[in-house]
Amino acid sequence: MQAPDPTVFREWIFVGAPLTPNALNDGKANFPEYHHVYIEEKNVDAYLKTGSFPEGTMIVKELTRVLDSTFPDGSRKEPSGRGFFNGQYNGFDVTIKDTKRFAKTNGWGFFTFGHHPLPYAKTAAEAPANQCAFCHQTYVSNTDMTWIQFYPILRDKNPK
Amino acid sequence: MQAPDPTVFREWIFVGAPLTPNALNDGKANFPEYHHVYIEEKNVDAYLKTGSFPEGTMIVKELTRVLDSTFPDGSRKEPSGRGFFNGQYNGFDVTIKDTKRFAKTNGWGFFTFGHHPLPYAKTAAEAPANQCAFCHQTYVSNTDMTWIQFYPILRDKNPK
Repeated sequence: MQAPDPTVFREWIFVGAPLTPNALNDGKANFPEYHHVYIEEKNVDAYLKTGSFPEGTMIVKELTRVLDSTFPDGSRKEPSGRGFFNGQYNGFDVTIKDTKRFAKTNGWGFFTFGHHPLPYAKTAAEAPANQCAFCHQTYVSNTDMTWIQFYPILRDKNPK
Repeated sequence: MQAPDPTVFREWIFVGAPLTPNALNDGKANFPEYHHVYIEEKNVDAYLKTGSFPEGTMIVKELTRVLDSTFPDGSRKEPSGRGFFNGQYNGFDVTIKDTKRFAKTNGWGFFTFGHHPLPYAKTAAEAPANQCAFCHQTYVSNTDMTWIQFYPILRDKNPK
């Protein structure tokens, strides 16, 4: 597939920011390090209404490194406290719902555009089923292949 | 001021997710724990063009706790690795740019709607200058009172 434009998907709805620092993962996290997850508004709204995503939904996970650490756990101290802060962009992955095309992997196809700084790849082939899809099938097949438990706006139904 | 509607500002542009876990801050982080920062698209676009925010810009920081930890540093293990994951919503703060009304605090007024789970407060008075504004004036007066260094889309000018 062609890469979606990062300047566009960064303006989609943000749903959550899991953080797996390299320093807590033997220096080689599978997803270094912040995972910023974005979904288009119409598809967020549909999920909130129906509990599943429409055909064609695209979910993007863009990574950023953490800002340089001063503690062994990857954290640093800033005026707001000791913790983690977004450093440079570090690649992105995409998943698309197409129940016919990706029937073998529960209706979703997985694409990785690399986990490295800009510039990003312009195209990506579908990732082998044992790479990305396997983990989603194992752990989140009951929530439309998506880690809803980590995305408060979806998990908690956008409460106020 | 009247509280902005969380179901609305969660659909604004997300700019960054500093994380100051309680476990790394003697059990009492000033901002527990994820800080999700949102700005309206028109004001992000203006900042990217001009390097400053228009009058009336509102910046919202909504907090979430981390999901229950299994390690002393506040982290837990999930299939994507050891790290931190968004738990329940935990309050929000707002800053508004009005160079006349808030002239004494570099043109920005600060309001906190509490740092606790839903339901949130419906109104808030301006925070005393020595509470929120002081830290912004001390550290980020050169970047329109905003922690641009932690917000990749603004810091790096939305690169692709």
